[in-house]
Amino acid sequence: MCELLAMSANTPTSIRFSFTGLVERGGNTAHHGDGWGIGFYEGRQCRLFHDPVSSATSEVARFVRDCDIKSRIVVSHIRKANRGRVCLSNTHPFMRELWGRSWVFAHNGQLRGVKQLPLGAYTPIGTTDSEHAFCWLLGQVRARFPRPPSRASTLWNFVARCCAELAGLGICNLMLSDARHLYAHCSTKLCWITRRAPFGEARLRDAEVAVDFGRETTPRDIVTVIATEPLTVDESWMPMAGDCLVVFEDGLPVFERPTRGAISERGSRHRSGGAASSRRRGC
Amino acid sequence: MCELLAMSANTPTSIRFSFTGLVERGGNTAHHGDGWGIGFYEGRQCRLFHDPVSSATSEVARFVRDCDIKSRIVVSHIRKANRGRVCLSNTHPFMRELWGRSWVFAHNGQLRGVKQLPLGAYTPIGTTDSEHAFCWLLGQVRARFPRPPSRASTLWNFVARCCAELAGLGICNLMLSDARHLYAHCSTKLCWITRRAPFGEARLRDAEVAVDFGRETTPRDIVTVIATEPLTVDESWMPMAGDCLVVFEDGLPVFERPTRGAISERGSRHRSGGAASSRRRGC
Repeated sequence: MCELLAMSANTPTSIRFSFTGLVERGGNTAHHGDGWGIGFYEGRQCRLFHDPVSSATSEVARFVRDCDIKSRIVVSHIRKANRGRVCLSNTHPFMRELWGRSWVFAHNGQLRGVKQLPLGAYTPIGTTDSEHAFCWLLGQVRARFPRPPSRASTLWNFVARCCAELAGLGICNLMLSDARHLYAHCSTKLCWITRRAPFGEARLRDAEVAVDFGRETTPRDIVTVIATEPLTVDESWMPMAGDCLVVFEDGLPVFERPTRGAISERGSRHRSGGAASSRRRGC
Repeated sequence: MCELLAMSANTPTSIRFSFTGLVERGGNTAHHGDGWGIGFYEGRQCRLFHDPVSSATSEVARFVRDCDIKSRIVVSHIRKANRGRVCLSNTHPFMRELWGRSWVFAHNGQLRGVKQLPLGAYTPIGTTDSEHAFCWLLGQVRARFPRPPSRASTLWNFVARCCAELAGLGICNLMLSDARHLYAHCSTKLCWITRRAPFGEARLRDAEVAVDFGRETTPRDIVTVIATEPLTVDESWMPMAGDCLVVFEDGLPVFERPTRGAISERGSRHRSGGAASSRRRGC
C-alpha cells in the first residue's frame, strides 16, 4: 500500500510541516520506500517533483522540504509498490491536461481488473493500475464534458460516479485535482483536519518537529490537510467516511457524495452495500 | 528571445557541465531571466523541473545542477518573455502525453498568428505562442497517427512538415522529444557538438568551469549537445543549417530534412525560398 497527503487552502500555504512527517514514512517510520512525488499548483499548472527512491533518503525530497513552496492545492504520495516496478513512470502523482488545466492524481489501494476499463484520450506511460485508473477516469470526464460544465457540481457528481465504479474494483483512496478543486475519495482510510484561527501548535508523529501555526498564518487563513494517517500527535484528525467523495475549495469541503452502489446521472444514490459510518465526517 | 539546450546520448549522461553554463545566461551573462526549465527523460517519462524566475539565481536550478541527473535525452530552455507573462504555466519545456509517452517541447522565436492554428486534442495551459505551437503540432501528429507509425521516418517527415508550417509564421528554433528521439528544428540559430572518444577537455564561456570529459565517460559514449549559442570556448561547435529539422538517436543524427517551402506527404521538398547554407551541417 501507499500513503497519501493533500492540502486545500484559501491562500498559498506551505505544506512543509506535513510533508516533513510524510517523507519519514517513506523508508524510515514506515515502509513506503518505493518512490514519492508531490505536486504544487500555481494557477492552472502544477509543479511536480518525483523521485523513484525512498522519500526518507531522497535528495529531491529534502530539497522540496527546504524550498518551502507555497500553494493552494497540493497532492503528494509515497509508494509501496505492489503492481508495476519501481521507476519514474510508476511514481505518483500522475498528471494530464484537460480543458487547458493540469489534472493531478494519486491513489492508494488495489483495483482488480482495472486494466479492463477501456481507455479514451489518455494512455498510461507507466504500468501501474493507478495510472490506468486515472487515464480511464479523465477519459470519461473528457468524453462526457468536451468543455467544462457550467455548474461545478455537475462535474463533481460525474467524478463521484467514476469513483464509485473504481471503488467497485477494490480499494480506491485517491486524491485528484483539476486545478480548481481538490477531490478526495475514501474507500477505507483517509483522515483530515481543518486548521483556522485561532491557530495552535502541533507536533509531528514521525519526526521531532513542532510548529506554531499562529506564527505562520494570518487570522483569515483556512487550511485543510488530508492524509492516510494522522500526521500530528496533538490534534484531532477526523476520519473520513468510507465510500465517499469530498470536494474541497479554498480549504473547506463544498461537496460530499457517497459512492457505494450505483450513482445515477443526477447524483442520486442506490445503495448496494453498508451505509457510510455516521460517526465520521464526510457523507 | 530565449535560449535552448538539448542533449542526445547513447548512455545516460550528465548535462551538468552544459547546464552550468546555460543558467548563467538566465540573468547573469545574458538577459534571459524570465524563467527556465529542464526535462530529463527516464524511459517514456520525463522528469521536469521548472522555475519562473531567473536561472542564475534560482534555487531549483542550483539544486538540479548539483543533483547531476543522468539521462539519454534532455531538453532545457531559459526564457526572455515576449508573449505571455512570467509564470509557471508560461515556462518551457511544455509536456503532453501521446501514445503512452511524454512529449516535451521548447521553443525560441516569435510566430505571428500562431494562435489561429486550430487545436485538436491538446489545449494550452499558459498563454505563450510557443505552447500553442506545441499543442497544434502534437494535435496534428495525433490526428495523423492515432498509433505510432511502423516506420520512424514516416513520423519524422510528418514532424518536418509541421515545423515547416510553423516556420512559415516566423522564427521557429525548437527542441522536441517523443521519448525516443530528439528533434531539433533550426530557423535561424542553433549549433551543436558531438563528443566521442578520444574525449578532451573543455571550458565554459559563461563560468569559470572546465571539465575533462575523458574522466567522466567511457570510450563508447557518444553525446551530442545542441544549443542556441556555443557553450564552450575551446571546442568547434557546428552551426546548424537554417530551415532544417535534424533528428537524433543515441547521440547521432539519423534524419535531416529541409523545411523551407512546402514539404509533400512523402518528404520531398518544393523550395519557395533560399537554400540552406551548404557551409553548415544539417540539411
